[in-house]
Amino acid sequence: MIVLGATGLVGRTMLRILAERDFPVRELRPLGSDRNTPRSIEFRGTGIPVTPVHADAFAGADLALFACANAVSRQWAVVARAAGVTVVDNSSAFRYDDAVPLVVPEVNGVLLDAHPPLVANPNCSTIALAVALAPLAREAGIERVVVSTYQSVSGAGSEALDELERGVRLGLDGPPPARGDGGPPFAFNVVPHIDRFEDNGYSREEMKVVWELRKILDLPALPITATAVRVPVRIGHAAAVNVTLARPLSPDEARRLWAGSPGTKVVDDPAEGVYPTPIMAAGRDDVLVGRVRRDLSQPHGLEFFVASDNLRKGAATNAIQIAERLVAAPGGVRPTGALLPGTRATGAR
Amino acid sequence: MIVLGATGLVGRTMLRILAERDFPVRELRPLGSDRNTPRSIEFRGTGIPVTPVHADAFAGADLALFACANAVSRQWAVVARAAGVTVVDNSSAFRYDDAVPLVVPEVNGVLLDAHPPLVANPNCSTIALAVALAPLAREAGIERVVVSTYQSVSGAGSEALDELERGVRLGLDGPPPARGDGGPPFAFNVVPHIDRFEDNGYSREEMKVVWELRKILDLPALPITATAVRVPVRIGHAAAVNVTLARPLSPDEARRLWAGSPGTKVVDDPAEGVYPTPIMAAGRDDVLVGRVRRDLSQPHGLEFFVASDNLRKGAATNAIQIAERLVAAPGGVRPTGALLPGTRATGAR
Repeated sequence: MIVLGATGLVGRTMLRILAERDFPVRELRPLGSDRNTPRSIEFRGTGIPVTPVHADAFAGADLALFACANAVSRQWAVVARAAGVTVVDNSSAFRYDDAVPLVVPEVNGVLLDAHPPLVANPNCSTIALAVALAPLAREAGIERVVVSTYQSVSGAGSEALDELERGVRLGLDGPPPARGDGGPPFAFNVVPHIDRFEDNGYSREEMKVVWELRKILDLPALPITATAVRVPVRIGHAAAVNVTLARPLSPDEARRLWAGSPGTKVVDDPAEGVYPTPIMAAGRDDVLVGRVRRDLSQPHGLEFFVASDNLRKGAATNAIQIAERLVAAPGGVRPTGALLPGTRATGAR
Repeated sequence: MIVLGATGLVGRTMLRILAERDFPVRELRPLGSDRNTPRSIEFRGTGIPVTPVHADAFAGADLALFACANAVSRQWAVVARAAGVTVVDNSSAFRYDDAVPLVVPEVNGVLLDAHPPLVANPNCSTIALAVALAPLAREAGIERVVVSTYQSVSGAGSEALDELERGVRLGLDGPPPARGDGGPPFAFNVVPHIDRFEDNGYSREEMKVVWELRKILDLPALPITATAVRVPVRIGHAAAVNVTLARPLSPDEARRLWAGSPGTKVVDDPAEGVYPTPIMAAGRDDVLVGRVRRDLSQPHGLEFFVASDNLRKGAATNAIQIAERLVAAPGGVRPTGALLPGTRATGAR
């Protein structure tokens, strides 16, 4: 098992979740995607050396989780594939390639049974939305989606998280400073700017939600619009979702659907102060769904609020669920090498 | 001029803005709405004693700005009216009363020319939305509005602001604590809960947006839905707005409309990092509008993002703009008493 980008926020979370879920890890090779890589990283309490990624790094491996920038993914996916390694890529480099499945296992995991050599892991906000919308799409049909996100700073990586921390400290006793890149402060602010802007005025983050939801839900023409906003939260993305259904579905019916669906947890008793928040979602793998109500503004509409851990289900957990199913699929990934000490061979859930 | 609730966040902002705008203040009477009132408050650099509100507090006055809780407003509006005092009330006590105008001067200020004895000042989020939506409603017709808010903690008062401060300090080095009222932390979190919950699953804050926008825009059946969310920001409310128009309107046309409308300022060059944020809006009276784009998900839709200072235009400035127009209206409020030293008689803008 290779983890490329093992020292980043998502890479480290991947290592933690591989251990948590007792993934049958054989020969772990943490690879660094840049020169600043620390020399070792901890896995199950043991320090394991991190090697900068290089041409022979993939030889003899079975599976690689990529948690790196698009350009790095593009460069090394070819090399990994040439070495026969199956790649689960967390970047957006391959997500919009028709030949590459974009997978949320609870929604379209069946695509993994065809043992694809390269699988794209969706955007962190998109995964939670897909998990929450899929049961509605199956049961009542979805005609339009309007999303506003509340995205935590960890989604921008560990340097951004340091920037938030610094901004909050300075902002307690004065105005929060502009960010190192000149952008408006994360601290004590909300910033409607994630990733670069497209010609249509949407940010690329917003278009990821549009493009990826359509692909994952297999509704290529679904009308979707999104506003993606960074908020001064460390971990946990939330979203306010307004959905137009083809057939009526009451809030109670929707809650029952979610309660019976994998990956969602209904957290919805607002009068008692029970509703999803990022802090509640952090450290969990379920997508929390609450504030479910009949939309006042259209006949077959629902409003709801979701929160999920963007580093876990929004990135690392989803990638590892993909890996688990790739390993479990008949004719799929053939594990190579000996199991690491203390690892069960059949840990995949 | 009476300010009831003069020591709260909004009351203090009212005093600051009365001075800033050179409002022709005659005999300022700051009144406290509770027992914890400090004994004096500053106005134009002079300490003025704050008196707890009492039965004779309104005698001989012309105009009163109320910045207090609903119950306090209900109790004292009657007394003020009996004394012949015109009341501009910032609570929600009278907003839904058909006999009471609910006014955003840029939108429906004409209602003030009938010299109403009691005027309701709208909800802080609603004011910004009304200012931004009114030009679109006039030009292209509005058929539906979907709003998600990003509301600062000052909207919940100065104790909530202290709570945020405390939560952030503790949250820098550990998990942010639950709030004093048992609610989830404001710090490093977003909380989809403002005001109490209604039977339909919406929060009262969300319903305020619905009810008040319909009344201010004079579109009593307008389909509106809202999700109101508290974010860890001190001052400045933002909102993502999705609007369905009756007739097509391009983003450029919308920007031109806003550029030519009172109360709005277009801040919209996202590729250059120029878009509204709460920090940018704080301390200003304009409603900032940006991130304007053609909605991908419907034929005649626009998406945009607004930010405004919830204590100023969202509360104090709007109330004082109402007062200015009440004083300026022929046959309207007759100022009583001598002008305070240093105050011009014709300062109203």
